[in-house]
Amino acid sequence: MKTANFGVIGISGRGSGMMRELMAVPGVNVVAVCDKYQDRAENGVKIVKEVQGTDAAMYLDYKELLKRDDISAILCCTTWITHCRIAIDSMRAGKHVAIEVGGAASVDECWQMVHTSEKTGKFCMLLENCCYDRNEMAIYNMNSLGMFGEITHLEGGYRHDLREEICLGRENRHGRLVNFMRRNGELYPTHELGPLSKLININRGNRFLTLCSMASKSRGLNVWMKKNKGEDYDIADFPFNEGDVVTTMIKCANGETILLTHDCSTPRPYSRNYNVQGTKGIYNETDDERAGKIYFDDFEREDWKPFKEFRDKYEHPLWKLYSEEGIHAGGHGGMDYLVLSAFAEAAINDVKPPIDVYDTAAWMSITCLSEQSAAMGGMPVPVPDFTNGMWIEREPYRRGKFCLDEVCRDCFENIDGEEK
Amino acid sequence: MKTANFGVIGISGRGSGMMRELMAVPGVNVVAVCDKYQDRAENGVKIVKEVQGTDAAMYLDYKELLKRDDISAILCCTTWITHCRIAIDSMRAGKHVAIEVGGAASVDECWQMVHTSEKTGKFCMLLENCCYDRNEMAIYNMNSLGMFGEITHLEGGYRHDLREEICLGRENRHGRLVNFMRRNGELYPTHELGPLSKLININRGNRFLTLCSMASKSRGLNVWMKKNKGEDYDIADFPFNEGDVVTTMIKCANGETILLTHDCSTPRPYSRNYNVQGTKGIYNETDDERAGKIYFDDFEREDWKPFKEFRDKYEHPLWKLYSEEGIHAGGHGGMDYLVLSAFAEAAINDVKPPIDVYDTAAWMSITCLSEQSAAMGGMPVPVPDFTNGMWIEREPYRRGKFCLDEVCRDCFENIDGEEK
Repeated sequence: MKTANFGVIGISGRGSGMMRELMAVPGVNVVAVCDKYQDRAENGVKIVKEVQGTDAAMYLDYKELLKRDDISAILCCTTWITHCRIAIDSMRAGKHVAIEVGGAASVDECWQMVHTSEKTGKFCMLLENCCYDRNEMAIYNMNSLGMFGEITHLEGGYRHDLREEICLGRENRHGRLVNFMRRNGELYPTHELGPLSKLININRGNRFLTLCSMASKSRGLNVWMKKNKGEDYDIADFPFNEGDVVTTMIKCANGETILLTHDCSTPRPYSRNYNVQGTKGIYNETDDERAGKIYFDDFEREDWKPFKEFRDKYEHPLWKLYSEEGIHAGGHGGMDYLVLSAFAEAAINDVKPPIDVYDTAAWMSITCLSEQSAAMGGMPVPVPDFTNGMWIEREPYRRGKFCLDEVCRDCFENIDGEEK
Repeated sequence: MKTANFGVIGISGRGSGMMRELMAVPGVNVVAVCDKYQDRAENGVKIVKEVQGTDAAMYLDYKELLKRDDISAILCCTTWITHCRIAIDSMRAGKHVAIEVGGAASVDECWQMVHTSEKTGKFCMLLENCCYDRNEMAIYNMNSLGMFGEITHLEGGYRHDLREEICLGRENRHGRLVNFMRRNGELYPTHELGPLSKLININRGNRFLTLCSMASKSRGLNVWMKKNKGEDYDIADFPFNEGDVVTTMIKCANGETILLTHDCSTPRPYSRNYNVQGTKGIYNETDDERAGKIYFDDFEREDWKPFKEFRDKYEHPLWKLYSEEGIHAGGHGGMDYLVLSAFAEAAINDVKPPIDVYDTAAWMSITCLSEQSAAMGGMPVPVPDFTNGMWIEREPYRRGKFCLDEVCRDCFENIDGEEK
C-alpha cells in the first residue's frame, strides 16, 4: 500500500478532530503538527502518539514546518482568515494542501491560490465535507439519473444559531467574533454552495457570473449578550457590522439562480435550507435534523413525500460502498471521513482531487464579493472566472470513487441503483 | 343599518366568487355589474338576482358604469394589467375602489393612484386577502405582544404550481399567459408582502428603500406543454421571458430585509414560504397545507414546535370574534370574506380603509421595479416613497376591528389573549 507523510497546521478542537479522522485513512502518516498556541501544538503531538504510536515533530510557526522536505501534503485547520495564505505557502513549499472551510478575505488571495497551484503543480482542496454528506450525495445520484429534469433554481443556507460561540470568541479562541465585529457579508457560503455547485457543474461547463448581497440589521448578538452575560458585559453594546441575516443571489452562466442565506445570530434550529428545483421535481430540506422532503411531477397527489425512502432507494454508490465496508463513524455522520479520504487518496497518489483549486477559489470568493455587494446596497458584482476560460470545455472529474461531478458507475462494483 | 350601493367590474370566475362574498357583507347592495365579455356580464346579473333578488344594471364598458351617480364604491376584479387604470378612473368618478391583487405595470400608474386618491378624497384598497388569513393574523397578535423581539428578516413567496392555468391562458381567458410571455420579474408579490409589510409598519414609521431581483432561466412551461399538449402544440417552444423562479431582496428603512420568491412554473406543492425572524424567535411556514412551525429562544430544546398550538393560544381577536359569531365560510377559508368586509365597512361609512392607497402603491410597485432590476442584472433600484415623507410620522391605523397595523384590543370585547 502506498503511504505519504502529512503535516497538520491548526490543532484547535476542530483541527484535532480532523487530524484523528485523517489518521484513520489508510496510508496516512502524520509526521509534524503545528499551532501558534503551545498547548494546542502539544496536544497535537499527544494525539499522534496515541493514534499512530509515533512521535510527530512540533512547530509553533507553520513556515518552519513547511521547510521539511519529507512531507507530501498539508492539512490546514487554522482560523478562517489564514487559510488562503497558508495554502499558498504550502504549495510554494512543494506540498499539496487541503484547507478547512471558510470564505476568502479578498479576490486577490483566490487568484494567488490558483496561480500558485498552476505554477507548482500542487493541488489546493477545500475540505467541503457537506459535498460528501449522505443526502447531498443521494441527490447527485438522482440528478445524474435525470430525475429532476433541468435544474433551474437552487437554494442553501448556513442557518445555525452560533450566538454563544460567536459572543464568547475571546474565550474559545474562535475567529468568528472578530469577523462578525468587522465584516458584513456571506461569511460562510461553502457548506451549501459546494454541493449545489457540483450539481450544476460549476467550473466544468458552467460558472458563477454575478452576485448580489443584502444584509439585515444586526441585533441578535447584542440581545444574546445582555440576556446571558448581563447588561454591563464589556461588548454587550458593540455595534456589530455583520447583519443577522445576509442574503445572496448568484446568477450562473447556464441561467440557474442560487440563493444563499447566512443566518447565525438568530435563535433557531439548524438548517442548511437546501432546495433543488428542476423541471420535473423538487427537493427541499426541512428544518428538522437534516430530514428532507421531495416531490416529483408524476406523483399522484400534489404533496411532499419524505426524502428518506428515496435516499434508501437511490443511495449514492460511495455511501453504499462505505456502508457495506462498515464506514468509519467519524465526525458529522461520516462526511468528514469521506472528504478527508478523498484528500488523502489524491495526495498519496499525487493526482488531482475532486475539489480542486478552481472550485476552492470560486466558492471562497463568494465571501469577499458579497461584502462588496452588500456595502454597495446590493449592487451586482462579477464573480471572476478563475479557470480563465477553461470552464467552457472542462470535462467532469471522473477519477475514482470520490468523484463529485458525475456518478461514475464504472468506478463502483456491485451497484444496482435503479435507473429511471 | 347603513347601506351603500356597489358596482362590480370584472365577473370572471374569481370576480363572481368575490361578488358573492361581497353581497354577504351586511349593508352591501350591488346595483351594477360590468365585464367586457357579454357572457360574464350576464352571469353577473344572474348572480345578483339569485343572491339579492334584485336586477343589477349590466355594462360591457366600465366607463359607462362609472357615470352612474348612485354608486359609492367599486369592486374591481379584472385582469392584472387593468387594475390601476380602473382604480384611477373610479376615484375620478367619485367612487371608493377596491382592486383584486396583482402587480403594477409602471411606477407612474402607482403615483397616479396616489395622486388621484389624495385629490378626490376617495380611497383605493388592494384586496390583499392574505393579510386577513388566520396564521398571519395570529402572527400579528404574537408580534404585538413582543414575542419575536425585534424583527430583523422576513421571507415570503408565491410558490404555486400554475403551469396548467398559465399555459391554457387562451382557453381560460386569464392574463397570466401573456404576462409570462412578455415580462420577467416578481409578477405576484402581494400575498406575502402585504402581511409582512403590516408586521414591520411599512408606510407608518418604516418603508421599503431599495430592491434587487434576479430571475432564473425559463424552462418549466415549455416542458409542461410538450408533456401535456404534445410536441407540436403551437406555443410549446415559445421563448417565455418570465424566469421559473424570480428572487427579490428588499431593504427597509429600519434595517429589515425581506426576501420574496415568485415560483409558479415548477412542479411543487403550494407554499407562501413565510419566515419571520426576530431576536427572540422565528416562525416558519412549512410547505404542508399552510401549517407552520415556531421556535422561541426560551424553548428547552432547540427544535421546532407546531404552530397550531400557538395559533390556538394567540388567535387574533378578529378571528376569535368571527369564530364566535359563526364566520361566513367564504373563499380561501374566510380571509376573502374578511378583506371584503373591511372594504365594505370603510366604503359604507365613508372612512379610510386598513389597506390604503399608499400600501396599494408600495406593494404593487414591487412588480415593475423587480422587472427593472432583473433586466439590469440585479441592480438595486429605489422604491419610491409614495407618502412623500408622511411615513416618518404616520401613526398606526387603529380604526376598528379590521385594523392590521396593531392589535387594537380596545376595539374588541371579551378578548382574553394571554399577555407574555
